[in-house]
Amino acid sequence: MAEVAVFGYGTVGSGVVEVIDNNAELMKQRGADLHVKYVLDIRDFSDDPISSRLVKDVDVIINDPEISVVCETMGGATFAYEYSKKALEKGISVCTSNKELVEAKGAELMEIAKAHGCNYLFEASVGGGIPLIRTINEALTAERIDRIYGILNGTTNYILTKMDENGADFADVLKEAQELGYAEKDPTADVEGHDACRKIAILASLVSGKKVNWTDIETEGITKIDTEDFKYAKELGCSIKLIAMCDFNDGCSAMVSPRLITADSPLNSVKGVFNGVLVHSDMLDDSMYYGRGAGKLATASAVVADAFECVHFAGKEVGRGWSSETLKLCDPGEMKGRFFVRVENTGAEEAAKVLGATEILKHEKETGLVSAEMTGNDFKNKLSGLSGVIKFIRF
Amino acid sequence: MAEVAVFGYGTVGSGVVEVIDNNAELMKQRGADLHVKYVLDIRDFSDDPISSRLVKDVDVIINDPEISVVCETMGGATFAYEYSKKALEKGISVCTSNKELVEAKGAELMEIAKAHGCNYLFEASVGGGIPLIRTINEALTAERIDRIYGILNGTTNYILTKMDENGADFADVLKEAQELGYAEKDPTADVEGHDACRKIAILASLVSGKKVNWTDIETEGITKIDTEDFKYAKELGCSIKLIAMCDFNDGCSAMVSPRLITADSPLNSVKGVFNGVLVHSDMLDDSMYYGRGAGKLATASAVVADAFECVHFAGKEVGRGWSSETLKLCDPGEMKGRFFVRVENTGAEEAAKVLGATEILKHEKETGLVSAEMTGNDFKNKLSGLSGVIKFIRF
Repeated sequence: MAEVAVFGYGTVGSGVVEVIDNNAELMKQRGADLHVKYVLDIRDFSDDPISSRLVKDVDVIINDPEISVVCETMGGATFAYEYSKKALEKGISVCTSNKELVEAKGAELMEIAKAHGCNYLFEASVGGGIPLIRTINEALTAERIDRIYGILNGTTNYILTKMDENGADFADVLKEAQELGYAEKDPTADVEGHDACRKIAILASLVSGKKVNWTDIETEGITKIDTEDFKYAKELGCSIKLIAMCDFNDGCSAMVSPRLITADSPLNSVKGVFNGVLVHSDMLDDSMYYGRGAGKLATASAVVADAFECVHFAGKEVGRGWSSETLKLCDPGEMKGRFFVRVENTGAEEAAKVLGATEILKHEKETGLVSAEMTGNDFKNKLSGLSGVIKFIRF
Repeated sequence: MAEVAVFGYGTVGSGVVEVIDNNAELMKQRGADLHVKYVLDIRDFSDDPISSRLVKDVDVIINDPEISVVCETMGGATFAYEYSKKALEKGISVCTSNKELVEAKGAELMEIAKAHGCNYLFEASVGGGIPLIRTINEALTAERIDRIYGILNGTTNYILTKMDENGADFADVLKEAQELGYAEKDPTADVEGHDACRKIAILASLVSGKKVNWTDIETEGITKIDTEDFKYAKELGCSIKLIAMCDFNDGCSAMVSPRLITADSPLNSVKGVFNGVLVHSDMLDDSMYYGRGAGKLATASAVVADAFECVHFAGKEVGRGWSSETLKLCDPGEMKGRFFVRVENTGAEEAAKVLGATEILKHEKETGLVSAEMTGNDFKNKLSGLSGVIKFIRF
């Protein structure tokens, strides 16, 4: 039997205990016999059945030679970092859902793991329960991945789906999402795209083998998307999604932004809190991975799947990491694409000409245009010379 | 360096050589240094650069102590079986794209592999390049899978997509697919659902741990789907897909049949030769895996990914298998669902009443109905008492 410790008894941490307690027999048949021996939390859970396994001192755990895996679900990059490091230095593998820590200190922690013959795994840090990290690490091993493009934040996808389906305002849907627990009280990290950005930074680091800083990635949230945008999108047969992407065709470019998604894209049908990620690679072409990108049990299940592999493949290096060398990203303005532009009717004719519009949608007071394909820099240059421009959204 | 032998230099086999030759450096960085030492084929390829590595005698390969993995891409269940067995008995892992052999002899070959400390892996036998077997084996390890439901045959999905988009006849689209190389000269295995059936039998065996015989699965192909069906489907906001499914909620039920797929299903946007498979499990809920279910490089890439794991995790048991005990399937007629029924106008009123129709679509000479939810047995009983029934399609 492999003894497991859970760091942090919050939503995901209690989910980890639930998943292991419920499905231990199943996992045993599949090759790893896991049991939760300790839960580390400074809070009091005296009414919870967990209380008998609760400890407040991390040293009790890492000094117990029976512990072979830690599931770190504390969040944050201070105590989680310190405790993860301590565990790894003892040769105890750490599996985490903590994207902030993985993005900030992943390279260092993976290096420590390697030096001590254990693993630092982080499936749950991106895409919740969707096996995305594992697919890149263990399934697409014969593939040169050249593009990742997808919906990595369930909160914003829920908001955009509701705006699309009900013609509702951003503010109203956000409020509803908060009431339903799909959005935080302070929704900034989600709606400004920071959460999706951290996740694409992790994926870009994994594919490139070098550290991609999330703060280097051009990021735009969904707060400026309005009901009029969705009217145009419908006319164009599109939906609007917050897309996090990275492209490795000529260096590495990365971006998080709302985009118009055509009906023939499999991302178009990724609705509500679901995530969906398209991976393009040289042999397989497009593949997509879809599922719940958040939620207690889905995320916990991914943490436990990592713990399973640490135990089942004990002594082997599972997955890959990246070095602490920072990858310099390309100018995102050099990425080519088409742009949807809303312009006041007075400026529409000129805008259509300058942008080589392929679609022109007349509304009462304004016009929607779809530009020809061009780089972002070209587009912004052209845009700066136009009058009456209201806004633009990328394709 | 791990030396690899490829059994069979057909489409997939030559793809395996291409994938390893092209991406060997990449795989080396990722933890497995593969090199193709031999290709086994009785045919002559004297003009092909492969000729220097070509052997006609399997014993040359299995008696070479340098060989650690065989990629079996011969097809069929006679020589492929004999040679795979020989290799495994020597402790050489075998990775295959051969669904016929996996379905027929997988349990025995996995047992032999286990007894000889090597692996028998078969990612490429289901869903081509989509990491589906690996996801079930290595990612969803903490999940109780209760349902698999998806599009597992690219040829029929191509045909149905073209019929849907162009209003074309089955026969015409089949001819076009044959000309494009998407359908075989003898298309029976695809259009009658046998190919999808073998694949769902493999998935059902993997999930249940017992052998599911493909011949035990109720299977219906797409040859009877016509342009009128697609007209009704459009009115219902649906597409028609050939769905292979298995359900483990109360024993194991399995079926392959055309089904109406509603617009809100992520399977609806799986078009052309692509495959898409929804997996439902207890912690993660729905997840979907999408990609090219066939094709030289996509399939080869999956074979090579298996070879990578055999080398990277040498000495460990990778994945899971099933026993040779046959799983008795439940009566598929006990599965509940809704049914779309076409009935001549003269019998429509009575049919709507008997079937508790929730939708009634009047066409010129006939009527389309959507039944209430009921078991297949109930439905067929009710149907037998009705007059003027033209056909039915499941939801």
